[in-house]
Amino acid sequence: VIGIGDDAALLRPRRGEDLAVSTDALVEGVHFRWGSESPERIGRRAVAAALSDLAAMGARPLGLTVALAAPPGLALARVDGLVRGLIAAARRFGAPLVGGNVTRARQTSLVLTALGALAPGRALTRGAARAGDRILVTGTLGAAALAVERMRRGRPRTHLPEPRLAAGRALAALGGVGACIDLSDGLLADLGHVLAASRVGAVIDPARVPRPRGLDAACRRLGVDPLRLALAGGEDYELLFTLRPAGPSDAVLRRRLGVRVTAIGRITRARALRGVPAATRRGWTHF
Amino acid sequence: VIGIGDDAALLRPRRGEDLAVSTDALVEGVHFRWGSESPERIGRRAVAAALSDLAAMGARPLGLTVALAAPPGLALARVDGLVRGLIAAARRFGAPLVGGNVTRARQTSLVLTALGALAPGRALTRGAARAGDRILVTGTLGAAALAVERMRRGRPRTHLPEPRLAAGRALAALGGVGACIDLSDGLLADLGHVLAASRVGAVIDPARVPRPRGLDAACRRLGVDPLRLALAGGEDYELLFTLRPAGPSDAVLRRRLGVRVTAIGRITRARALRGVPAATRRGWTHF
Repeated sequence: VIGIGDDAALLRPRRGEDLAVSTDALVEGVHFRWGSESPERIGRRAVAAALSDLAAMGARPLGLTVALAAPPGLALARVDGLVRGLIAAARRFGAPLVGGNVTRARQTSLVLTALGALAPGRALTRGAARAGDRILVTGTLGAAALAVERMRRGRPRTHLPEPRLAAGRALAALGGVGACIDLSDGLLADLGHVLAASRVGAVIDPARVPRPRGLDAACRRLGVDPLRLALAGGEDYELLFTLRPAGPSDAVLRRRLGVRVTAIGRITRARALRGVPAATRRGWTHF
Repeated sequence: VIGIGDDAALLRPRRGEDLAVSTDALVEGVHFRWGSESPERIGRRAVAAALSDLAAMGARPLGLTVALAAPPGLALARVDGLVRGLIAAARRFGAPLVGGNVTRARQTSLVLTALGALAPGRALTRGAARAGDRILVTGTLGAAALAVERMRRGRPRTHLPEPRLAAGRALAALGGVGACIDLSDGLLADLGHVLAASRVGAVIDPARVPRPRGLDAACRRLGVDPLRLALAGGEDYELLFTLRPAGPSDAVLRRRLGVRVTAIGRITRARALRGVPAATRRGWTHF
């Protein structure tokens, strides 16, 4: 209704909708490095990460605010690139940039706040998994971690994730869905968040975790374990969700969500995670 | 509805309400200094600044998100103090902290996003002033700038502003109100924003700008110009607004807004600001 330039931006959700709000920060040297990817890609990645939280709730995006902090000496081409990436991704995913703040700082950082709307009582949460639920993931896992492995070897970072907004909204509208989370920290860490919030455990079959075509061959060349990338690697931004035993069939799911969906395990009453080799559980960092 | 801990926080505005969103950043060394005020006060000031933008729109606060970036070596007492200040002010002003993000960085910074709600079509904006409107301000101006002058002389920063949330909501509900803005950058700068957005000019009477009791005497002791503090000093977070000639009387205003209200000038068709001595127009910075 009112965009950047007044004291606040004005947004108009539909009557009676709930609001979803999520804040993410990207700091230079922690979440991104100038030399490893283009400024535009950094901006795009920031938007994808922010909107992925809305996808995980089943919300439709209303808008985004961005606070940019940057040293006075930062090259204009970098600022321009960042902003171009933010705007391009915001447009692509239907989340207008409604507010902005620019300030100087010694280190460049971006803080994005994503605002979404959804029907009351329909939000997907981390705490709704129950023993007996099947565990599923959208898309494939490991491409983002492979890109990080390549970056570590001096190659440019190329993978650009896509928030699963349509799939999240479809899940929120379906019956028989349990918990949902987006895979930002990696399958094991994020499944752990679901298990903790839902006070349950799980057994998963690592061999069933869907990996992108070519991942295994690329991993062989780099000498890394593809299973570890798919299970412990972060930033794929796929959705992990659980389905009640009487929930929708895989065919219905695929049709409604519009993406590949794979069952990888089951929620258990016993509060432990079983099925994962110890070597794969090793910690994982953004770089 | 859902607080910190899930992918996003859930808020429930009333049916049909518009949303107001505003983002503010406070960076160490730019907007605050550890030595000049307590960490708790910094947190309180951050919340006041963020909510003041909602006050200027006439919105009621729904919630706040906070992104904190801090060096790993930052003293825990400082983090604790900041968070205590954020929580105390959020509670005091009725804006729950609904989302948070903590990340490491070389420099401490806080990014607050304030979310508010208001009846559709009732938002107060900067661009609604018209020639013939009276210009009014709430409260008194200059106390924040005096605190900064004292801080420059090595004394602790003591002034703590209060966002004019109730007054802003009352203005949004009244008829006959033109433009509105909160005084964060100082009367001259912020009135300038209103004039630019509304494509009008103004004549103001500096002698009428309400100054807090004791300001003039304190300024004499420090050798600074009280008029400059009141007109060019920032961070008082009072509201400046305009009223149509047929708008409410001063008595009605004071009763409905619950604060002191003072007329300081008039909007003109001629796009210039008249009445302000050249010496007072000099620039003003946060420190």
